[in-house]
Amino acid sequence: MSTTDPVENLQRLIRCPSVTPAEGGALSALEAMLLPLGFKVDRVVSTEDGTPDIENLYARLGNDGPHLMFAGHTDVVPVGDEGAWTHPPFAAEIVDGIMYGRGAVDMKGGIACFAAAVARHIENHGAPKGSVSFLITGDEEGPGINGTIKLLQWAHEKGERWDACLVGEPTNPDQLGDMIKIGRRGSVSGKVVVHGVQGHVAYPHLADNPLRAAIAMAGALMDPPFDHGTDEFQPSNMEVTTIDTGNPATNVLPSKVTFAFNIRFNDIWTAESLMAEITRRLDNAAAKSDLRPGRQPARYDLTWAERPSHVFLTRNNRLLDSLNAAIEKSTGRTPKLSTTGGTSDARFIKDYCPVVEFGLVGQTMHMVDENVPVADLEALTRIYQAFIARWFADAGA
Amino acid sequence: MSTTDPVENLQRLIRCPSVTPAEGGALSALEAMLLPLGFKVDRVVSTEDGTPDIENLYARLGNDGPHLMFAGHTDVVPVGDEGAWTHPPFAAEIVDGIMYGRGAVDMKGGIACFAAAVARHIENHGAPKGSVSFLITGDEEGPGINGTIKLLQWAHEKGERWDACLVGEPTNPDQLGDMIKIGRRGSVSGKVVVHGVQGHVAYPHLADNPLRAAIAMAGALMDPPFDHGTDEFQPSNMEVTTIDTGNPATNVLPSKVTFAFNIRFNDIWTAESLMAEITRRLDNAAAKSDLRPGRQPARYDLTWAERPSHVFLTRNNRLLDSLNAAIEKSTGRTPKLSTTGGTSDARFIKDYCPVVEFGLVGQTMHMVDENVPVADLEALTRIYQAFIARWFADAGA
Repeated sequence: MSTTDPVENLQRLIRCPSVTPAEGGALSALEAMLLPLGFKVDRVVSTEDGTPDIENLYARLGNDGPHLMFAGHTDVVPVGDEGAWTHPPFAAEIVDGIMYGRGAVDMKGGIACFAAAVARHIENHGAPKGSVSFLITGDEEGPGINGTIKLLQWAHEKGERWDACLVGEPTNPDQLGDMIKIGRRGSVSGKVVVHGVQGHVAYPHLADNPLRAAIAMAGALMDPPFDHGTDEFQPSNMEVTTIDTGNPATNVLPSKVTFAFNIRFNDIWTAESLMAEITRRLDNAAAKSDLRPGRQPARYDLTWAERPSHVFLTRNNRLLDSLNAAIEKSTGRTPKLSTTGGTSDARFIKDYCPVVEFGLVGQTMHMVDENVPVADLEALTRIYQAFIARWFADAGA
Repeated sequence: MSTTDPVENLQRLIRCPSVTPAEGGALSALEAMLLPLGFKVDRVVSTEDGTPDIENLYARLGNDGPHLMFAGHTDVVPVGDEGAWTHPPFAAEIVDGIMYGRGAVDMKGGIACFAAAVARHIENHGAPKGSVSFLITGDEEGPGINGTIKLLQWAHEKGERWDACLVGEPTNPDQLGDMIKIGRRGSVSGKVVVHGVQGHVAYPHLADNPLRAAIAMAGALMDPPFDHGTDEFQPSNMEVTTIDTGNPATNVLPSKVTFAFNIRFNDIWTAESLMAEITRRLDNAAAKSDLRPGRQPARYDLTWAERPSHVFLTRNNRLLDSLNAAIEKSTGRTPKLSTTGGTSDARFIKDYCPVVEFGLVGQTMHMVDENVPVADLEALTRIYQAFIARWFADAGA
């Protein structure tokens, strides 16, 4: 086995049913690809009360800097309605140049290509002048508690330091070469309980309808917009995701209302400045929601969800230039540098080194009949190859 | 038994445990008070699928006009925590001049006093020159489906016509003579389901968060106020009573939201004009709730609760002048003419004849240790006596 063929690599990975939290043989399959190349491989099991144990993998080739990390995950989302699949989800069948299977693009395909790219680099040029590592989790599609964040801590504690990271998530909307993700918005969630005084709807002055304040407060969170975006980022976007009262009686005013919200925010804000602004809006709306004489501002409790996702933006020239040049050379296209979409594990990696994301075309991710054109696997492998060569050349320069 | 003593009458009524829908002997006790006075008594059982059968009573003295109706109910609300009562709720104990028992003021007391007043009128002056009737339901504290509304229909169909009605509900906030109720606000309830498109919170442009529209629509119902009241009525008051989504996931936008509302409205509106204004506000808010390019107004379903309660205001001079003069003569106080509070069965009666409400002091209604000062029973009986005398004298003039 040579690891130089991304198609063969990917078939071996897809045939391991590694639906989170199951390892399913996928990390062992990857280990079997990396060991012959000279990688030192660590299998790291992370545990936490109340969550399933998760297997992760860290593999390094080389001892010196510069040090390039490739990050990703071998776990996949469930197959859903297996009967709806045209091709079995863990068979990796190739039909008319298309390989079908869960994880084909998200993101066993990225791993298969990067492993092939490293193998070809070694075959053509010998080991890179520096170090390459794989940081691969089995918990990206799950709660993420025992995944990348812990694996990074583990590696950092044992002395690992990185100069740059490429995450192999599917980033291209339509064609290979469309888009590099150079940052992600942050995410903050919270829950508000607004307290009132229960009473008869015909005597509202003897009660205090908490829905008046809740509507004002929820409305104040969504309007006006928090900002209008930046050159790199979409506008921050706040959504109230639920409001709940549970009052079945139309002649009774309820005693409390709860609502929850989530905001995806750009680098105009930090999580901290954003939380302060949210609190300011809630306080203002609570104070103004009932102006009847003698009324106090609405009482409310605000609970923040654990761990906000911090916004990040990567402007590391070496990393971006190497990747950009590799993509342009291979595809003739200039990728858009984007920060759109949800969060990814890059938000954890950015605390350790500059990080960007580039992988396959994401259209079929999480869908029935997830698939990847075999041609894309070869093309992405060539991009990764060119990137590795350029990054180490630039690093050495 | 002479029926002239309101204290004795009330004790007999309280000792019948007539918690809705039970008759509990209360109507039979009333029948026993009225038959000796010459009343023709009909016991009318009303039925409807899905509701308990209800006993009602209609009694008339005299065959000619003018015809004065006294309306009320013998059913009472549950005793609640019986252990919390200082005096048994169906014993009608008198301690230090106070009679205790469920229904003492709401409104067996009013019935006891009016029966005594009629008995005294007959004793002193003979039967009134015209007719007096009692229209008494056993379903005022319940759903009201088999109560006053059906009893009125029944009586009207057999040819009964009335010139005026006094409802004996407790109307006085603090002292006998405080307040006559000359009207009641109407009440309209409805439920709205706002439809959106479910999606990931990080891609709101691919989804349609129905909470944006729901917040705007619920807010538009409560603000601005529908009016600022009239000389006779409080401002109409709208309350959103519940908003419910049931979305547990902070990273998902929900597909729909429901909310309910109730408005108590004055005679600036009819139920119909009010429903049109509510629909206009909902439509406006739905259209404006999302101004992103290409968006349609939010889709929503509006369901009106069955049977709105219509607003009414009574300006019948003979009825008001007779009652007012009787109160002033007996108490030395000028009652306030009010339209405050919840709905009452007067809203049904107003379709047949002018109706006002005057009874005992309402402070302990529906509470543990509901009670009435014995002195108030005598005082209300004298007011009712004077009212009967004046009303028939004015009618005869």
